[in-house]
Amino acid sequence: METVMLARRSLGALLLAASTATLASAQPGADPLPSWREGPRRQAILDFLRATTTEGSADFVPPSERLATFDNDGTLWVEQPLYTQFVFALERVRALAPQHPEWVSREPFRSVLDNDHAALARSGERGLAEIVAATHAGMSPDEFRAIVTDWLGHAQHPRFRRPYTELVYQPMLEVLALFRARGFRTAIVSGGTVEFMRPWTERIYGVPPEAVVGTTFQMRFENGRLLRLPQIDLVDDGPGKPVGISRFLGRMPQAAFGNSDGDYEMLQYVTGAPGRRLGMIVHHDDAEREYAYDRDSHIGRLVRGLDDAAQRGWHLISMKQDWTRVFPGG
Amino acid sequence: METVMLARRSLGALLLAASTATLASAQPGADPLPSWREGPRRQAILDFLRATTTEGSADFVPPSERLATFDNDGTLWVEQPLYTQFVFALERVRALAPQHPEWVSREPFRSVLDNDHAALARSGERGLAEIVAATHAGMSPDEFRAIVTDWLGHAQHPRFRRPYTELVYQPMLEVLALFRARGFRTAIVSGGTVEFMRPWTERIYGVPPEAVVGTTFQMRFENGRLLRLPQIDLVDDGPGKPVGISRFLGRMPQAAFGNSDGDYEMLQYVTGAPGRRLGMIVHHDDAEREYAYDRDSHIGRLVRGLDDAAQRGWHLISMKQDWTRVFPGG
Repeated sequence: METVMLARRSLGALLLAASTATLASAQPGADPLPSWREGPRRQAILDFLRATTTEGSADFVPPSERLATFDNDGTLWVEQPLYTQFVFALERVRALAPQHPEWVSREPFRSVLDNDHAALARSGERGLAEIVAATHAGMSPDEFRAIVTDWLGHAQHPRFRRPYTELVYQPMLEVLALFRARGFRTAIVSGGTVEFMRPWTERIYGVPPEAVVGTTFQMRFENGRLLRLPQIDLVDDGPGKPVGISRFLGRMPQAAFGNSDGDYEMLQYVTGAPGRRLGMIVHHDDAEREYAYDRDSHIGRLVRGLDDAAQRGWHLISMKQDWTRVFPGG
Repeated sequence: METVMLARRSLGALLLAASTATLASAQPGADPLPSWREGPRRQAILDFLRATTTEGSADFVPPSERLATFDNDGTLWVEQPLYTQFVFALERVRALAPQHPEWVSREPFRSVLDNDHAALARSGERGLAEIVAATHAGMSPDEFRAIVTDWLGHAQHPRFRRPYTELVYQPMLEVLALFRARGFRTAIVSGGTVEFMRPWTERIYGVPPEAVVGTTFQMRFENGRLLRLPQIDLVDDGPGKPVGISRFLGRMPQAAFGNSDGDYEMLQYVTGAPGRRLGMIVHHDDAEREYAYDRDSHIGRLVRGLDDAAQRGWHLISMKQDWTRVFPGG
């Protein structure tokens, strides 16, 4: 037993040496947030990390309990002009239409096939649910994963003409990496469905499938096969986000990042807990490099978050002021 | 970018060097499964790991996809004479009885308070569900976690007179550690509820909360608080286990370990997938050191698993033959 304990200690020491050496060699006196401008938001992140990871600090959090949660759409990647998963669903309707001749005369499918956006908008939540059900269910998770991977491999954003997985926010990739370097587990808590995200979140964000919380479908195991049913199990949005965090991750995060009122309850849940907490909202105020939207947007609407941020101690990240660049590469 | 890539490579190399060095120093020519007797079951584990982790092997699985799932009750720790969580629930009924004077005349609570096991058994699944609902709901996850931690800190198994968390199977702890040393993520997939397991699985098994799949309750976020409701969401048993694996972990395991017919569908799901797979069943045939039970047991009943193991290629682990010791320490 003692050998094992010693071995564990040596491993810990070696890992520490390894990571310290690497951080030092990669970043000699380096800036851990190179795409963030000096200012209160950048400082809030650094202060929070120093307080929660410095041993002896009143706010110290043991490594095994460190957890930070991130919304996806609009927080880690672009959500305008339409949620990527919804773009995917619409294109699936078009791809599946030949097998569904009845769709040409049935709403909301008719509107999709006719590119009638006004009619589609009128079909509302119910229409959206029908489209998602028709395009996301009735197959195994593996089959669905293959369809998603194939689609993301060739689909391009209408404005930026780049694959959606390249339209992730470079400053947020740096935040994810910095939190992990400080011993935090990073998790995604998104209104999107888990099967749409899990095929690529590890590669793009460094977040493994089991740390991706999202909307889930009912499933049934039948004849040795798992089938996805068209009924939703958890809507991981708004008040569903604290439920998803507790159900999937099983512990209370110390930090949460969102961008819309769908993240309000997650921010409330996380920053309302005792101890040092960090709540941040990505405010889309940069029409030139990305988009500018909040109170009046049909996607990623932000009203309560704007109204209550100051009182609740949430930091509004200004994309325009705080980020020196938005996307990786360019 | 190139610096970062190089840095990543150096970190990888250093980590590899660190873990190799440590394995070597901890185990010079060491046996990775010291509590397993030479024989076909031990060999099946080693063969599977060699095949799936040797680069160039036809069965090679990339590290990011490696996953092994383990049932808990009867597979990782003792489940006789009663599931630990059920013992906990019964003791909670007694502890909460003063606040529920109506229980003295209401089944199934009356039987619990009277220690009337026959009547309790007659109350069946419905009675069990009522007991679990009454003792596990109506509080926040944090409050419930504190109750579980406190209880496990003082409760003792009636026969072995040791805390339940010490009645874990040493040979299975070795399997968990060996799989992880070979790059597998290890996860628990149990009929128990997630909140009962997550407070201690990382300390005892090395399995973090987000890798614990189990039965879940409905929850509601209300007035800034998360409340556990008395309705079950997922019954993570039998056909619910493949659902839980897909929903929580989001990928297909290559190996699964169980012990009762509640694990049948998990074994079927995992070993039915294409590629090299490992399915193992802990067979409790050791009345002297632990318990001997299978077809006729009221707890951990094993009938279909015994009947179909050979045909499905599942390995029956004989506790008596294959394990040189059962529990840690002694």
